[in-house]
Amino acid sequence: MKNISLLGATGSIGQQTADVVRSHPDQFKIVALSAGKNIELVRTYIQEFEPKLVSVQTEEDYHVLKSEFSNRKDIEFMYGDEGLTAVAVYGQATILVNAVIGSVGLYPTLQAIKAKKDIAIANKETLVTAGHLVISEAKKAGVRLLPVDSEHSAIFQALQGEKEKNIERLVITASGGSFRDRTREELKDVTVEEALNHPNWSMGAKITIDSASMMNKGLEVIEAHWLFELPYDKIDVLLHKESIIHSMVEFHDSSVIAQLGTPDMRVPIQYALTYPDRIPLAGRKRLNLAEAGKLHFRDMDFTRYPCLQFAYKAGKMGGTMTTVLNAANEAAVSAFLSGKVTFLEIETLIEKALNQHSVIALPDLETIQEVDNMTRQYIESLVKDR
Amino acid sequence: MKNISLLGATGSIGQQTADVVRSHPDQFKIVALSAGKNIELVRTYIQEFEPKLVSVQTEEDYHVLKSEFSNRKDIEFMYGDEGLTAVAVYGQATILVNAVIGSVGLYPTLQAIKAKKDIAIANKETLVTAGHLVISEAKKAGVRLLPVDSEHSAIFQALQGEKEKNIERLVITASGGSFRDRTREELKDVTVEEALNHPNWSMGAKITIDSASMMNKGLEVIEAHWLFELPYDKIDVLLHKESIIHSMVEFHDSSVIAQLGTPDMRVPIQYALTYPDRIPLAGRKRLNLAEAGKLHFRDMDFTRYPCLQFAYKAGKMGGTMTTVLNAANEAAVSAFLSGKVTFLEIETLIEKALNQHSVIALPDLETIQEVDNMTRQYIESLVKDR
Repeated sequence: MKNISLLGATGSIGQQTADVVRSHPDQFKIVALSAGKNIELVRTYIQEFEPKLVSVQTEEDYHVLKSEFSNRKDIEFMYGDEGLTAVAVYGQATILVNAVIGSVGLYPTLQAIKAKKDIAIANKETLVTAGHLVISEAKKAGVRLLPVDSEHSAIFQALQGEKEKNIERLVITASGGSFRDRTREELKDVTVEEALNHPNWSMGAKITIDSASMMNKGLEVIEAHWLFELPYDKIDVLLHKESIIHSMVEFHDSSVIAQLGTPDMRVPIQYALTYPDRIPLAGRKRLNLAEAGKLHFRDMDFTRYPCLQFAYKAGKMGGTMTTVLNAANEAAVSAFLSGKVTFLEIETLIEKALNQHSVIALPDLETIQEVDNMTRQYIESLVKDR
Repeated sequence: MKNISLLGATGSIGQQTADVVRSHPDQFKIVALSAGKNIELVRTYIQEFEPKLVSVQTEEDYHVLKSEFSNRKDIEFMYGDEGLTAVAVYGQATILVNAVIGSVGLYPTLQAIKAKKDIAIANKETLVTAGHLVISEAKKAGVRLLPVDSEHSAIFQALQGEKEKNIERLVITASGGSFRDRTREELKDVTVEEALNHPNWSMGAKITIDSASMMNKGLEVIEAHWLFELPYDKIDVLLHKESIIHSMVEFHDSSVIAQLGTPDMRVPIQYALTYPDRIPLAGRKRLNLAEAGKLHFRDMDFTRYPCLQFAYKAGKMGGTMTTVLNAANEAAVSAFLSGKVTFLEIETLIEKALNQHSVIALPDLETIQEVDNMTRQYIESLVKDR
């Protein structure tokens, strides 16, 4: 039995993690969970999984739940940042599934690592904003960082039984997102609804927008840099609209190992939980390549997708530059989702934030949090001034 | 330094093995080699690789070489079956690359296994004709059977770091061979030259004809059955005309691991020699999927390709049935190559041979050799009677 603490339990990855746990109750147990504002789903989770610790975002929701479950003295309730960290380090858990969105996941992740938890990491922003801290702490503590992103899970699976020294490059595939068949000209007036309509994957709002802008792939390149400890010139991106080859590793003997499958996030989630073993996936849709007929591949177009350029550039500069990239993107996407800026302005805002920043090398946690905050404020000031 | 004995040194796989050795003289040395009738190339090999033992097919060629190299007392010359086996078990070698064609490779392989040599096996007929003997002897001797066929090497690579119990099925890809775009009707009058024109791979005559008839894939299914110890219902074949995905393994969590690359037999040859490590491949052509643009997949058509049906059927019956399948195919392909039968008659001959045979379970070596001989005689009698 593997005891799991789950951050971001009501989001897309959180719900699919719950699904994996549900179908293998003999193998997995959710002992602690955090959620945002979807209290209705938290209620269901409490009944179904009987966690020992539940944290929600607001104090108000905390009081609501605490009084509702006043007869359940075995469940502890918490809220806010303190609750998030308490779930992350929860004593009975051996693995943390970090499925929160944004750099808010950084602090609880670092605390969980210090508490010797293995980390199944879906929260890519944490690695983008402070990869060097997360990796060095994980090494110090001797815990595993298990990728949950489908691309990084694919690379991780392809690397099993292989030696790092033999890697020629990683090839991260990109579907192209909601607007892959549109020119830049055609992106001018796109709506939030159109941007949220991803052709292959059903995901949360933030990552779907990131996919449309290709920033998601940029964040993944930086994530791969940290997870697999490879320089950026060994990490390539390839357009592959079907999202069937989830990513690849090319070795220096010219052999390429790829992981494939129908797009289903439960596969990488479950693999992170069962690693290095595999167990049957409940209700799986098996890959049928004959039915797919064709797989398509195209070179990445950096002019069409400036966000990917920004990410490589920020990644190569390192230090706080990726903190700025991530915070600016989070703030700009949030502004787009609330209708304050257009889709193409996301790029403009991020570029401005990067240009006004002077990079700080090897920042500590405090510096990262400060730069993160300042960047958000800067983006908000630009949005306000429009 | 890995000392290699090489059976079939002047054939397609033999030459490419020599190429791999040539480009890594610090890692590999050919200490013994056997060849057929290409004495000119044997001369070159002797100068270049300075093997200690050289065996050729005929006594005549043996005498020619022996007198030519009479000043080289350090080189031993042999010929015929005895020479083949002497090369296979050569004392200074730690690995045998078996690149001969046909069931003639069986006896030397068994002897090499008994002499505790690891076997890099390109000689699929040996596994088809007597897989149970080869596998049980290899287990007894504790030696490795390393696949050299690109498909089996792909599966072997995909299985690194994985557990056999988690395998759902193997998917062996098939280019479709020289006649993949023709109907059965259009196969009636095809010439030997047309059959020898494989779209993706440059290989020897026998395997190229086997590819056109799809018997090659049938032999590979049986080879996979023995190498990976899986039942036939867990081994599928998929048409993939580009030969870029060399084969795949599907696991029960629905994850699929594939090995890809430009078609280059030096990759699996070198992998078998460096396993479990990899080294750079000299003059490699790196895979460029964007350049390829599209990969195509189609379900296998068992009506279009009866030889694949025969192979599954013979494989499932087991015992001497696959010995008959292989011997009948070798004799029929030989008859086609020498212009005695048409392309479609290859199938008819094999079917007749299978139908007239009463299977013997768990045959010993003597029985296998007897059935092999009788089957060849039977095919020859049919060819003569036409």
